[in-house]
Amino acid sequence: MADTNTRILLASRPVGEPTGADFQIESAPIPDSGDGQVLLRTIYLSLDPYMRGRMRAGPSYAAALQIGEVMTGGAVAEVVESRAPGFAVGDIVNAHIGWQSHAVMDAADLRKVDPSLAPISTAVGILGMPGSTAYFGLLDICDPQPGETVVVSAASGAVGALVGQIARIKGCRAVGIAGSDAKCAYVRDEIGFDAVINYKTQNVPEALAAACPDGIDVYFDNVGGATLDVVLDQINIGARISICGMISEYNHEEPALAPRPTRALLTKQARMEGFLMFQFADRHEEGRRQMAEWIRDGRLVYREDFVDGLEAAPRAFIGLLRGENFGKLIVRVGSDPTR
Amino acid sequence: MADTNTRILLASRPVGEPTGADFQIESAPIPDSGDGQVLLRTIYLSLDPYMRGRMRAGPSYAAALQIGEVMTGGAVAEVVESRAPGFAVGDIVNAHIGWQSHAVMDAADLRKVDPSLAPISTAVGILGMPGSTAYFGLLDICDPQPGETVVVSAASGAVGALVGQIARIKGCRAVGIAGSDAKCAYVRDEIGFDAVINYKTQNVPEALAAACPDGIDVYFDNVGGATLDVVLDQINIGARISICGMISEYNHEEPALAPRPTRALLTKQARMEGFLMFQFADRHEEGRRQMAEWIRDGRLVYREDFVDGLEAAPRAFIGLLRGENFGKLIVRVGSDPTR
Repeated sequence: MADTNTRILLASRPVGEPTGADFQIESAPIPDSGDGQVLLRTIYLSLDPYMRGRMRAGPSYAAALQIGEVMTGGAVAEVVESRAPGFAVGDIVNAHIGWQSHAVMDAADLRKVDPSLAPISTAVGILGMPGSTAYFGLLDICDPQPGETVVVSAASGAVGALVGQIARIKGCRAVGIAGSDAKCAYVRDEIGFDAVINYKTQNVPEALAAACPDGIDVYFDNVGGATLDVVLDQINIGARISICGMISEYNHEEPALAPRPTRALLTKQARMEGFLMFQFADRHEEGRRQMAEWIRDGRLVYREDFVDGLEAAPRAFIGLLRGENFGKLIVRVGSDPTR
Repeated sequence: MADTNTRILLASRPVGEPTGADFQIESAPIPDSGDGQVLLRTIYLSLDPYMRGRMRAGPSYAAALQIGEVMTGGAVAEVVESRAPGFAVGDIVNAHIGWQSHAVMDAADLRKVDPSLAPISTAVGILGMPGSTAYFGLLDICDPQPGETVVVSAASGAVGALVGQIARIKGCRAVGIAGSDAKCAYVRDEIGFDAVINYKTQNVPEALAAACPDGIDVYFDNVGGATLDVVLDQINIGARISICGMISEYNHEEPALAPRPTRALLTKQARMEGFLMFQFADRHEEGRRQMAEWIRDGRLVYREDFVDGLEAAPRAFIGLLRGENFGKLIVRVGSDPTR
C-alpha cells in the first residue's frame, strides 16, 4: 500500500477556461480512520462538467470549493481499512472522494458496488450519477411518449448517449447533436440514434429541421447556449425541455445574452425545467436496476474514455470542457482488483 | 336599431408602439344571418394585451391578422336576430366578435351569459378569458401550496389582481408588482395583497427581496422583460413560473437580450411553463362557477376600467400597452339592457 495520499487541490479560480495552474498536486499523509469510518483507495475517479461550477466563487446548487480544498468528484474505491460495521477490506464502494488517491469516509456516505452486476467503473457512469441523470431527467422531467421526437445535445457524452437510447426504448425518435464526425458516427451507427447533427460543421437550424420533420417534442439540454435557442424555434405545442447542464457556458465569466425563451414557451405552451439527479435519490436504485437489465439485454451500450493516473486529471478535465473526451471520462487512479 | 355596422380594421402593422394610424374606422352594411346563425349587437368589447401579437406579420399561437381585417377581440353582445335554435332575441352572449358594433356568428361560437350571476361585463373579465387565465394559470400550472410566496406582475390588471386573490384564498402570501402608486394602493388596500412593489419608482430587486423574505415559490408572469430576470434571481428550490404574457416586450420589433434563465432553473430545480387558457377549455365552466361563488362570498373583488364608444378603442388599446388602464379594460360599444 502506498504510504502517501496524492491529491489535487483547487489552486486558483479559473478565469474563463481552466489551466493547469488552477490545480495543485501534492502529497499528504494518509489519514487515519475513526470509529464508523473506512479508509478508501481510489480506483476510478469520475470527471464531470459540473465540477467547473464548483470552482467558481459563488454558490451554485452546492457550496463553492475553497482555494486549497481537494477538487470534488465521485469515485469507485476499495476499502483498505474498515472500522465500520458492514464494510470489509476489499469491498468496492462508490463515494464522493474527490481528486485524491485515498480518503477516510463515514460509512453512511458510501454505496456498495456489486462487481457481478457490471464492470465497477460503471458505478460512476451508466450505473452511477450520469445514469441516474439520464434516466430520471428524461423519464420524469420530460415524460416522453411513443412516437415523439426527442433531441439531446452532447449526444455522445455519458448522459446524452443514455438519453437517446432510453428514448428509443420508449418508442421515440432520438436525434443527437454532437461535436465531431467520429462522435456522430458513434451515436448513429453504434448506439442507434435515428439522426445526428455535427454542430461544428453543419448549419444547426437546417440540419435540425431536416432531422425532426415532425418538430421537437422533448429536448434534453446538456449544453445550453445557442443550441438551446435554435431548438426553441422548432419545438411543438406542449414540448418539454429538461435543463441538465450548460457546458457551452461554464467557462464564461459573464452569462451570454440571448432572446428570452418566454415567447417560444408561451406560443407553444411548453415547459422548461431544471433538475438535479439528487431530486430522485430515493429512486436511484430503481433506475440502476432497470438500466442493468437493459445492459444485460443488449438494449443499452456505453462507452468509457479512460485516462491514466491522477496527475492526468487536470488536463483531461480541461479537455472535457472543450468536448475532447469521447464517452464517459474516467481517470484510472489505482489498480482495479476485479479485472 | 342602427342601420350600419361600425368596425375598426387593422390599417397597417405597427412598428414599435401602435399609433392611431394603424387602425381604420369604417361603416359597413349590417350583415345578414343565415340558418343556424344570429345577428349580434356588441355591448362590451374587451381590450387585451394579446391583441398586439395578432397585429404582427408572423403567426403567434394564432394566425396573424391581415391588413384590412376587423381587429380581433372578445365581447358581450345581445342577440338582435336569431335563426339558430336555442337563441332568442334579447339573449346575452359572449362571442369573439372583434372590434365592431354588429356581427353575424354561428350558434356554435356563442356562449350564453346569465345576467343573474354577475354584471354581464364580467363575461369578458373575471368570468371570462382573464378569469380562466388567472384561475388555471395559477392553480394548474403553478400548483401553489399553503404558506408559499406567490409573486404576480401587472398585479392591478384583469388577470394579475385575480391571481393574487386566488393565491390568498389558497393560503399563500401574495406579492404584487404594479406601475403606479394608485395601482399599488389598490392592490394592497382594496384587494388585500400582502405586499406590493411599484416597479417604476422602487429598486425592484431590493423591494422584492424585502417583500419576499422567504424567497419566491411561484411567479405568475404577465410582463416578461427585466422583471422576470429579477424574479429568477430570487426563486426558491422547486419554484414554478407560469408564462402568461410579456406585455413589456410586445411593442419590441426585435426581442430584447438577457441572460438565459437556464442557470437559475437548473440551480433551483425550477420550472417555467407557457400556457394559454384554451388548454383548459373543457374546465372553463368549473372555473367560472368557483369564481362566481367567491364573488358572492366577498372573497374576490374586481375592477373594471370602462371607455365609451367603439371609436375610443384604438387610443385605449395603445394606453393598455403603456399600462395606463387601471383594472379590466372594456369598451362600452352599445347600451347594456341589464342595467
